[in-house]
Amino acid sequence: MRAGDLASDYPTVRPDTPAIEAARVLAGQNLPGLIVVDHANAPITILPGTQVLRMAIPAYCQDDPALARVIDEAAADVFLRELGDRTVAGTLPKQQRELPVVQRSATVLEIAALMARTRTPLVAVVDDRGALAGAITLDALLDRLVAQ
Amino acid sequence: MRAGDLASDYPTVRPDTPAIEAARVLAGQNLPGLIVVDHANAPITILPGTQVLRMAIPAYCQDDPALARVIDEAAADVFLRELGDRTVAGTLPKQQRELPVVQRSATVLEIAALMARTRTPLVAVVDDRGALAGAITLDALLDRLVAQ
Repeated sequence: MRAGDLASDYPTVRPDTPAIEAARVLAGQNLPGLIVVDHANAPITILPGTQVLRMAIPAYCQDDPALARVIDEAAADVFLRELGDRTVAGTLPKQQRELPVVQRSATVLEIAALMARTRTPLVAVVDDRGALAGAITLDALLDRLVAQ
Repeated sequence: MRAGDLASDYPTVRPDTPAIEAARVLAGQNLPGLIVVDHANAPITILPGTQVLRMAIPAYCQDDPALARVIDEAAADVFLRELGDRTVAGTLPKQQRELPVVQRSATVLEIAALMARTRTPLVAVVDDRGALAGAITLDALLDRLVAQ
């Protein structure tokens, strides 16, 4: 059993996708994260759901619990609407981390270790040209590991 | 809208729960993570799914992709079975990080910031005595944020 056998179709977003639409894709389909691809369908980045959520939070609230505590729901609405003018590219973290991307030949253990190391419940599977061939979610992988 | 209004019932595990059973709870119910509680039902730790997965991966494979690459599926089976003798307590990370736990009065923005900061798609809600009153998943929170 290799990554190529486990990969399933998965929705993608582009760098120029509005951030609010990206959040809706994540929420509407209960996805564990988002795969951002370029014009050649190659993964540029993979964001776990918690980091997509981060896009919708004002920077000054992210690291200061006291500030987040005093801002009520109405304020959160305002910030979410503000997000509507930004694109996915405009909200991506500047620091590039290790991407959870594997070739079709990757082993189950390799995929599991990559998810654990990058703390991302989603791994993109690419073909020889680097184009997205599918994705493997943590749920799908665990089902496979635990069922055996 | 506060944490107390958003919280839903959520499965828990104990420190003495076998690690394999904890992994099965996560996989079987497609949960975003596990809440470990003590005898008073107070959250001891909250593990995102990727960190539960980490329990099932041999330590020497976690940080060395080359090793994980050469071990085939049969080997992964062996490691998963080995996990069966360990408990949740025996697999918990030694370093205690910030716990994604809030009071019932926490705001939506506070919950979102906590999920983003701790990279955990799951927040436990506790009552005045510190006992678990429910949990809020990233999916539930996003549905609330994006729907508005």
